[in-house]
This record gives sequence, structure tokens and C-alpha cells, in this order.
Amino acid sequence: MSEIFKQLDLIIAQRVKEADPNNSYVAKLYQSGVDRMLKKVGEEAAETLIAAKNQAAGAEAAELIGEVADLWFHIAVMLHHAGLSSEDIATELAKRFGMSGLDEKASRAPTGSV
Amino acid sequence: MSEIFKQLDLIIAQRVKEADPNNSYVAKLYQSGVDRMLKKVGEEAAETLIAAKNQAAGAEAAELIGEVADLWFHIAVMLHHAGLSSEDIATELAKRFGMSGLDEKASRAPTGSV
Amino acid sequence: MSEIFKQLDLIIAQRVKEADPNNSYVAKLYQSGVDRMLKKVGEEAAETLIAAKNQAAGAEAAELIGEVADLWFHIAVMLHHAGLSSEDIATELAKRFGMSGLDEKASRAPTGSV
Amino acid sequence: MSEIFKQLDLIIAQRVKEADPNNSYVAKLYQSGVDRMLKKVGEEAAETLIAAKNQAAGAEAAELIGEVADLWFHIAVMLHHAGLSSEDIATELAKRFGMSGLDEKASRAPTGSV
Repeated sequence: MSEIFKQLDLIIAQRVKEADPNNSYVAKLYQSGVDRMLKKVGEEAAETLIAAKNQAAGAEAAELIGEVADLWFHIAVMLHHAGLSSEDIATELAKRFGMSGLDEKASRAPTGSV
Repeated sequence: MSEIFKQLDLIIAQRVKEADPNNSYVAKLYQSGVDRMLKKVGEEAAETLIAAKNQAAGAEAAELIGEVADLWFHIAVMLHHAGLSSEDIATELAKRFGMSGLDEKASRAPTGSV
Repeated sequence: MSEIFKQLDLIIAQRVKEADPNNSYVAKLYQSGVDRMLKKVGEEAAETLIAAKNQAAGAEAAELIGEVADLWFHIAVMLHHAGLSSEDIATELAKRFGMSGLDEKASRAPTGSV
Repeated sequence: MSEIFKQLDLIIAQRVKEADPNNSYVAKLYQSGVDRMLKKVGEEAAETLIAAKNQAAGAEAAELIGEVADLWFHIAVMLHHAGLSSEDIATELAKRFGMSGLDEKASRAPTGSV
């Protein structure tokens, strides 16, 4: 799975660069402005909560997986618009959790209060 | 950055297994139940929207990076509780965007309507 | 303004009873199930946050008023589906804030820690 | 119930005017700024979704009533901060649904596509 989040960023960047709203959802969303992107993030976050409650009540995991994927995809578009990427989020998480971005090993997980 | 999301999952799994709520935020959150985890996801999603508006209005990126990291961390805890991980999300994204999970290259990005 | 929230509940109840999804957004939404109603509540809550940030940054109040009205409308549909109404919310607020539901006067506002 | 939403606005205005953060949650929240108020709105919206799912799954209505009351309370604080009140929302709803703000009767509900 390792490079998929990074590759998604590259696909988004490519779609934004091509800027063809007729053939690309990303381009269309991007051109509609930051408020529209953020509304989608909020909407997908709500759908994630609903799907998680359904999964906790016994539903299959597919709905939850799909909603979190939708949420992350729209966050990735938002990050690109802000001049950021999933790498900035990974770096922040690595810093917080004492992970090395170069040679991460789970065995070196911090023993702190995380 | 490649393995950081995966390593975060391993840290969460370790904290849940150790189950020491006095020394671990993850363990404490996990033991407080799914509704408490989901409230945190919703709270961090709202904070992400607010931070994104601040960044769009000229604020530095640090707040937005921090809130998205918080959001993803709590999503990762929620996914673990559901028996899932970031790998399930990556696999779903790869499927949607025509990426190969084994040998991803941005140059093989789909030309479709993403 | 006094009876408008209550009247909205009556309009919603009437639309649900008529159950004509072709002529009524309420009927259509209601028949699509509780998850669809809740997604709309979440979506309108996100749009409220975005509109509030815009208003705080100097935009006119119309967007915020519109989004809060949208949010309350969808909450009212959700409450109806749960066998509740705005009156239950008003009663709860009155209880918390020491207001009388029969003869409320602002001058009798509690001096407590609200 | 009729005047309770309006009375809540008056209580909030009074607490803001007294500006005593030691004795008033409203005053403290208000002084912490608009982002903090909006975070609370987002948090209570998420808790409303979770409570609604619990209620739909058979839980008693008390949790849902409590969360919607919390949500409305924080929206009312946000509206006050924006120079607005529940009356602005009621007026907007009345306009949309063809209700008269002076002499509303459910029997005069519109026959349109609401």
C-alpha cells in the first residue's frame, strides 16, 4: 500500500494541471472553489460517522471503507489547494509519534503516552 | 513518507493491546467506546474545516496540517476498532483510481474521468 | 417569530402524511431513510461552519442565515422521524436554563452559571 | 414552547454583556473567539448524528433531545456573535415556507413543493 496516498496526490495534481472540468471531477471541484471543496470534506466526514455506526451495528465494512476513502480523497484535493500534500500529514504524524520518516520500524514505536 | 500511515496503525494496535489507559491516550479512547471515538472524528473534521478557512484567508499552514493529522489519527483508531486499517483505504483508493498496489507509478495514472 | 418553529413541524408532518415524493422534498427525503436525512444534517452543519467563517471575515449575513435555516429544517425532519419535535428541544432548553415554558420572561433569566 | 428560543437569545445576550467568564459558560466561550464557538457547533453536530443513529437503533430519545438542545444552544451563541438571532432564522424559514410571521396557522401551509 505504501505509495498509494502519494500517488493519489500526483493524480490530483495532474488533473488540476490539465484543468479539464468536462473530463475530470477533480478539475471541476477544484475550479468551483475552496468552499465547495470544504463542503465535500464535511459531507464525507458525516457519511463516515454514519457508516461507522452502521458497521458497529453489524453492517459489512464496505460502506465504511468507501466513505473513509471518499473523505481522504476530498482531503487530498483540499490539501493540494492549500499547497500541501499527504506527505506533510505523514511528516506531522511521524514527528508526533516519534517515527522516523526514513527508516520506520514498528518495533521502534515510542513507549510514551500516545 | 511511505510507511508512516502503516506504522501509525501498528502503534495504535500496540497501544490497544497493552490496554493501559493511564499511560496511553489511544488505550483510554479505545476503552471509552465507539461513540467517543466517532465524536473525536467529528470534532477533528470540524476543526479541519475551520483551519482550512483560516489557511485560505492567509494563515500559516501549521494549523491545517495539525488538524488533518489529528483527524487521520482518530480515523485510524476508528478503523482499528472496526477491524480495518489504512491499508483497506489505500486498496480502495487504488481500485478507484486504477493504481497498482504493488508497483505504483504516477506515470500510470488513469486518463479517465477522475 | 414565536410560532414559526412549531409551524414548520406541522408543515413537515403534513408533507410526510401526504407522502407524495414527486411534489414534496420532505416526502422524498423522508422516504429515502434516516441515513439520508442525517447526511443532510451533517452537510448543512458543515456549510454553517463555512458560512460563519465567511461572515466573520466580512461577508454579508445572508449566507449564514440561509445555512442555519437549512440546518434547522433538516433537523426538524430528523426529529419528526424520531417521533420528536422542536417542542421537545424547547422544553429541554427551558429546563436547562431555568425558563418557564408557560410564561417565559427574559427578566427571569437564571443567575446561575450558564 | 413558543418563546423559549427567543428567551434563550436574551439569556445569551445578558451573559455576554455581564462578561464574567468565571461564572458563565457563555461569557467564557464568547471570549475564546469565533473559532472556538464554531468547533463546539461542529462537535455538537457530530454528537447529534451519533445520537440519532442510537435512537434509530432503539435507544431512548433523551440522548438525541439533549444533543440537539446542545447544538441549538451553541448555534444561538454563534448567531449572537454574528449580530443575529433565532428571529433571523425564523424569518428565513417563514419566507421559504410561505408562513406569516404575524399570524401563522398550520392550515395555511403552502401546497407547493416543500
